[in-house]
Amino acid sequence: MFDPIEKLKEFIRYPSVSADSNFGEGMLGAQTFLSNLLASIGFEVEVVKTDLHPIILASRGSNPEWPYVIIYGHYDVQPADPLNLWDSPAFEPEQRGERLYGRGTADNKGPLMTHVAAVAKLLERDPDLPLRITFMVEGEEEMGSPSFPKFLERYKDRLGEADFVFLSDTGIPNEDQVVITCGLRGLVLFDIEVTTAKSDLHSGLHGGVLRNPIQALAEVCATLHGPDGRVNIPGFYDDVLDVEPWERDELVKYGTDTAAYKKFLGIPEFYAAEGFTPFEAVRFMPTLDFNGIGGGYQGEGSKSKTVIPSTAFAKVSCRLVANQDPKKIRALLYDAIAARMPKDVTFKLIDQHEGTPYVVVPPNRTNTPADQPPVLAKGFRAAHSAITDVFGKEPLYLREGGSVPIIADIKRVLGLDSVMFGLFLPEDNLHAPNESFHLGVMERGLKVSEQVLGKLARG
Amino acid sequence: MFDPIEKLKEFIRYPSVSADSNFGEGMLGAQTFLSNLLASIGFEVEVVKTDLHPIILASRGSNPEWPYVIIYGHYDVQPADPLNLWDSPAFEPEQRGERLYGRGTADNKGPLMTHVAAVAKLLERDPDLPLRITFMVEGEEEMGSPSFPKFLERYKDRLGEADFVFLSDTGIPNEDQVVITCGLRGLVLFDIEVTTAKSDLHSGLHGGVLRNPIQALAEVCATLHGPDGRVNIPGFYDDVLDVEPWERDELVKYGTDTAAYKKFLGIPEFYAAEGFTPFEAVRFMPTLDFNGIGGGYQGEGSKSKTVIPSTAFAKVSCRLVANQDPKKIRALLYDAIAARMPKDVTFKLIDQHEGTPYVVVPPNRTNTPADQPPVLAKGFRAAHSAITDVFGKEPLYLREGGSVPIIADIKRVLGLDSVMFGLFLPEDNLHAPNESFHLGVMERGLKVSEQVLGKLARG
Repeated sequence: MFDPIEKLKEFIRYPSVSADSNFGEGMLGAQTFLSNLLASIGFEVEVVKTDLHPIILASRGSNPEWPYVIIYGHYDVQPADPLNLWDSPAFEPEQRGERLYGRGTADNKGPLMTHVAAVAKLLERDPDLPLRITFMVEGEEEMGSPSFPKFLERYKDRLGEADFVFLSDTGIPNEDQVVITCGLRGLVLFDIEVTTAKSDLHSGLHGGVLRNPIQALAEVCATLHGPDGRVNIPGFYDDVLDVEPWERDELVKYGTDTAAYKKFLGIPEFYAAEGFTPFEAVRFMPTLDFNGIGGGYQGEGSKSKTVIPSTAFAKVSCRLVANQDPKKIRALLYDAIAARMPKDVTFKLIDQHEGTPYVVVPPNRTNTPADQPPVLAKGFRAAHSAITDVFGKEPLYLREGGSVPIIADIKRVLGLDSVMFGLFLPEDNLHAPNESFHLGVMERGLKVSEQVLGKLARG
Repeated sequence: MFDPIEKLKEFIRYPSVSADSNFGEGMLGAQTFLSNLLASIGFEVEVVKTDLHPIILASRGSNPEWPYVIIYGHYDVQPADPLNLWDSPAFEPEQRGERLYGRGTADNKGPLMTHVAAVAKLLERDPDLPLRITFMVEGEEEMGSPSFPKFLERYKDRLGEADFVFLSDTGIPNEDQVVITCGLRGLVLFDIEVTTAKSDLHSGLHGGVLRNPIQALAEVCATLHGPDGRVNIPGFYDDVLDVEPWERDELVKYGTDTAAYKKFLGIPEFYAAEGFTPFEAVRFMPTLDFNGIGGGYQGEGSKSKTVIPSTAFAKVSCRLVANQDPKKIRALLYDAIAARMPKDVTFKLIDQHEGTPYVVVPPNRTNTPADQPPVLAKGFRAAHSAITDVFGKEPLYLREGGSVPIIADIKRVLGLDSVMFGLFLPEDNLHAPNESFHLGVMERGLKVSEQVLGKLARG
């Protein structure tokens, strides 16, 4: 049996930034490393080519009578910039105290390694385990998984035989309190690009007769929220469902310390929808945010580069909640923006990726659908008892603010629900400098995964 | 006598971008090149150190009875980016047809070389010319000349003996119609920087409770103009003077072809102040423009870098007209922006440079002050007749939209007015890719400069 932490360090050293084409070598390294590791613990590994980054499909067990679990993960990571804000190099894992620092430690290499190690340990002890397991590990999650739906369609028959998907790509509030995520927000991303002239022009010679694209863009962006902070797009909230009381109750158990949350975020005040606590707002309400804006001169020497730029852009993303349709929301947004754009500028609304929101009702909560598949229900119950046993506390069942669009895709194409066993902490700095993973949580997570899979197989 | 075009090409090859510290070698090269050239035609050259880039002071003639002209220019250039939009490399001058292409050909190396060559020719023919000439050539014009006022104070006694300043750093509408610029707009530059959190945060995990700095910035920027396009800052227009009728008349001679101007700018419509033609608007009206904006993720992989940034900035510049005070306008702007900034964000207003607007009334127009110094008046008349002779058309006397803040500084510190003999054309692409200088205009300019200086000396 390998050392999970050492193996994780190796995994981190491959800079697998999927969204940046300069990192091709890191992507290949991470993919090869993981394939070899899975082969070494007895899995039959297939590297499935896609238009962009391959998907690793590794399976063991073929008896169709056995329960069948797919374990999902991703080997790609977010870009690491701004690099100067890291205390240790992003791709040189460094253990400080109980934490391992490095890009991808928490999202998603650490949690994925937790499951790989759990399976390795379980199979070492019980080589004939009557359980079918498939690791399905993609390399485009941080880009919005563009190749994944097509892959699911192609492997629909084979993967559709599974009972449910087991994964750890969601969060928990502290190292003792596990959360089983029962919902994820959807996504709609797009760019607004405004053009006013065929080239940048001198603001002295011509300033006074030119439409400034930054001004036009700012004017439109400023209309997208009302004075109350709500998204100011007609129909935007129409399909948002009321939150069920058990969900609010469960969230209260999660935490009510808004002062600590504020401090953690490093913000002076929350800017949340009325009628919702901050914890509710990030889970139950949709958003519209600007992820980036650019135009004109931004470099050194900016003091005097007094051009009037010809173009400016903003990168916009919406998080959607259960029952909102990304395509419908995109259309509402585009219509409103087009109507509000000054008539004297040229603009483009450029589609970026989107994802459907997802929700599953766990079998031990109210309103459990009677027809929930038995192995899925067994998975939820096994997770509940293993978590209670290992972490010493019952898990909470919560929706989460983040998006894992492929969870909704898996449901749509394969008909499978997911048991999302959270493993990363708020302090893990996902998508930000100094990302880290708590090694104590990793150790406990490993035990839970081992117990859940063991129980599914041996009852 | 050297070949002016070959010497200009040599000058262009030194990439003297003052605002970017990576171009130190190019700055030194340009400065050394010019110093040597001026020494070679008989000038005593002093390289005056400043906090940043040295000023070249080169003089000939010391008889205090002689008329004394200072010729101003600058050896620094604008940054050349975006480099990919140049048809030939920015710092490898290329002659195509009647034009020489390269960064700085028109602004200001070409016009400066025109005067250097004129002086060289004149002195070759008339080595004992009874005229004091000082070339005063700075290296920080494209950064707003931060060291220049201090330099003027230091050399006040010596330079204050001069009768006027002669320079070519302004524009003309076509190669036959020279403009003597009688006014320049002032400048106020500053950055707005908005901060909402201590670091970038994940838009999924926390989106819905965070103040987005891009949103806050856009909201403030959107208030800075009214729906009529006017600057929406109380008091902004208070000190703007009515335009004198002769100025409007003179401008009509300059040109009225708004369709051609629109086409030249590559814009669908003008966005000008009401009551002003586009030609008037860029000369007689103040502006507020965004020169740059930035925040969040803008690079490759932007499709999925769904952070909520912690900070965003905009670079703002105002062009001011005669009688507006940059300090007063800056205070009005800062007060209004502070009042409009959402209360839940932190912001900074960062001073960048500023310049006072300038105006001089030429002696052959109405309202000429009776007390205009005789040598200045002689300079204007010499320029008028030389231009009429060489270009075949009387010059126009116009205010210009651009800013040369040092012209107002020279007036304030040395008490000297400037005769601004325009040499660059609208097609010269100043501050933009594919900057060029018209060599026919250069040849004629050389003759005018030679005649003006000759007439001042020999009557």
